[in-house]
Amino acid sequence: ESKLKIFALNSNKPLAEKIAAAVGVPLGKSSVTRFSDGEIQINIDESIRGADVFLIQSTSAPVNDNLMELLIMIDALRRASAKNINVVIPYYGYARQDRKTRAREPITAKLVANMLQRAGADRILALDLHAPQIQGFFDIPVDHLVGSPLLADYFLRNHLNEDAVVVSPDHGGVGRARKLAEFLKTPIAIIDKRRPRANVAEIMNIIGHVEGKRAIIIDDMIDTAGTITLAAQALVDAGATEVYASCTHPVLSGPAIERITNSPIKKLVVTDSINLPQDKIIDKMIQVSVGPLIGDAISRIYNDEPVSPLFVTRYQ
Amino acid sequence: ESKLKIFALNSNKPLAEKIAAAVGVPLGKSSVTRFSDGEIQINIDESIRGADVFLIQSTSAPVNDNLMELLIMIDALRRASAKNINVVIPYYGYARQDRKTRAREPITAKLVANMLQRAGADRILALDLHAPQIQGFFDIPVDHLVGSPLLADYFLRNHLNEDAVVVSPDHGGVGRARKLAEFLKTPIAIIDKRRPRANVAEIMNIIGHVEGKRAIIIDDMIDTAGTITLAAQALVDAGATEVYASCTHPVLSGPAIERITNSPIKKLVVTDSINLPQDKIIDKMIQVSVGPLIGDAISRIYNDEPVSPLFVTRYQ
Ligand SMILES: Nc1ncnc2c1ncn2[C@@H]1O[C@H](COP(=O)(O)O)[C@@H](O)[C@H]1O
Ligand SMILES: Nc1ncnc2c1ncn2[C@@H]1O[C@H](COP(=O)(O)O)[C@@H](O)[C@H]1O
Repeated sequence: ESKLKIFALNSNKPLAEKIAAAVGVPLGKSSVTRFSDGEIQINIDESIRGADVFLIQSTSAPVNDNLMELLIMIDALRRASAKNINVVIPYYGYARQDRKTRAREPITAKLVANMLQRAGADRILALDLHAPQIQGFFDIPVDHLVGSPLLADYFLRNHLNEDAVVVSPDHGGVGRARKLAEFLKTPIAIIDKRRPRANVAEIMNIIGHVEGKRAIIIDDMIDTAGTITLAAQALVDAGATEVYASCTHPVLSGPAIERITNSPIKKLVVTDSINLPQDKIIDKMIQVSVGPLIGDAISRIYNDEPVSPLFVTRYQ
Repeated sequence: ESKLKIFALNSNKPLAEKIAAAVGVPLGKSSVTRFSDGEIQINIDESIRGADVFLIQSTSAPVNDNLMELLIMIDALRRASAKNINVVIPYYGYARQDRKTRAREPITAKLVANMLQRAGADRILALDLHAPQIQGFFDIPVDHLVGSPLLADYFLRNHLNEDAVVVSPDHGGVGRARKLAEFLKTPIAIIDKRRPRANVAEIMNIIGHVEGKRAIIIDDMIDTAGTITLAAQALVDAGATEVYASCTHPVLSGPAIERITNSPIKKLVVTDSINLPQDKIIDKMIQVSVGPLIGDAISRIYNDEPVSPLFVTRYQ
């Protein structure tokens, strides 16, 4: 039987430690540093010949550096005769560039999929991909984990599902909202954004009943937090008693932290798919770890068991 | 007949302008910017359907950003129906990682070649690759230009070849030194570095006659400038009257500028394959442009003429 080895790159070492602890193996010995000119230097400091390797890297900011670390490490593992290279990507960068919205645009999410395969990935383990179609960008197996059961767990444990309504910030996110609402046994509402004319502020129209209720907004990621903070205000204006916001991927770039701090959002519930610097961790933020979830999935893949019904069985 | 279009990315716009001027076409309209989270956003602002596109990008520092710009732009050009995508890489980053020197190392120069081809490059135009073997990493045509005739031109025009000796800083660079020496009609010398024991300073032994001569050291790139400044001192100690240093690629990372400033090097003659920030341009530096050389090569490729004997005919 071949050995299970878990390696972490630089983007999210704390999560990698939690994953390794959940699986019950130590992280493999390797280092990723820089040459004087900024080029990436990789050292793998133990044999991985014939091993089932799981390589953990979120391609969060700095996205290009993190992506190149990942590709170079895959190259090194393949040349060092790994039996299998399983790439664990808790946050998949460039996922929003998943289709052409205008002429002459790249489809960078597909480019990244091609690069990962060309480098030598044998299997991908991802979490809440921005669009499920990204699975189809790969010709290798993709296990797609979902974060909402973990987020649901937080709300359930704190009895926040009572008198609550789950809110999707746009029409694209309704499926995700419905899933969370099933866990929480609440109704759903949808924010219907509309820009009446160009250069006129968007109108946030709420479809569904939120008056007198605790609103729980759910999205896959929160980036600059423009949409979610406007939605929170619209929900308060429509009579919601309090507003919680939740997402799997806390991208939180640019003005995000300031906007959230100044918004009526009471608590922001996120996962640790992206490692946040200290100045992005604010009082109203709750982080739940996907370490045990991903660790479980790794053990199942290694033992040739199915991965998908992981949380369904746990929550139904 | 299909149209010739030249596009520049962000790493070396000044060189791209010179190349476009040499070819006699304006640079294509495009912009490469960043989304709030640091992901690359590309806009191509004119039709390139059916065109012969030449895309100019040095993968110098920040190497991962410049490489991803290049890959994403290739993806966008391919999806926008370019007839041919010719990738012009005046400086090829990661070229020194071109072989395994220890166990479990990546071969990143090959990974980069694979990525460029997978993204959709049809042809590569490169300048002084660190090792000529890198041509073989590609399965598409590679035109390989050489910078030494341009550097030779500087020394000839200033009559610096009289009483001179061309010096290779190591055994690997003898071919390059011999080529320059042929242009300058001088003899060559070689620096034979030796470390007698671990943790003992290297001894710089000079093979060949340098006493009473102007030494002209040539290398493909100067990075931290450790070797070249030690070599310059050794040449002075051996009786050279003055020392010039020359290379195609001025990487100049870390302590390079300080070392060169404090060394006996009288002039440093480099090309503009890498765009240098203002604080790396020092008084003793001479920059010669490869713009006309690359422009010439692009015109020849576009007109289906051979590229290789470009300088041989000009200098023999
Ligand atoms: N990193 C990014 N930040 C902001 N917008 C992006 C980013 N990447 C892609 N986009 C744009 O986001 C849109 C797709 O987002 P969505 O409609 O949520 O799937 C497209 O118009 C993309 O051009
Ligand atoms: N960016 C870099 N900076 C310094 N050394 C490097 C770099 N990339 C690779 N190397 C090392 O340089 C050596 C190859 O250089 P060379 O012998 O000049 O071909 C190998 O030992 C590499 O590990």
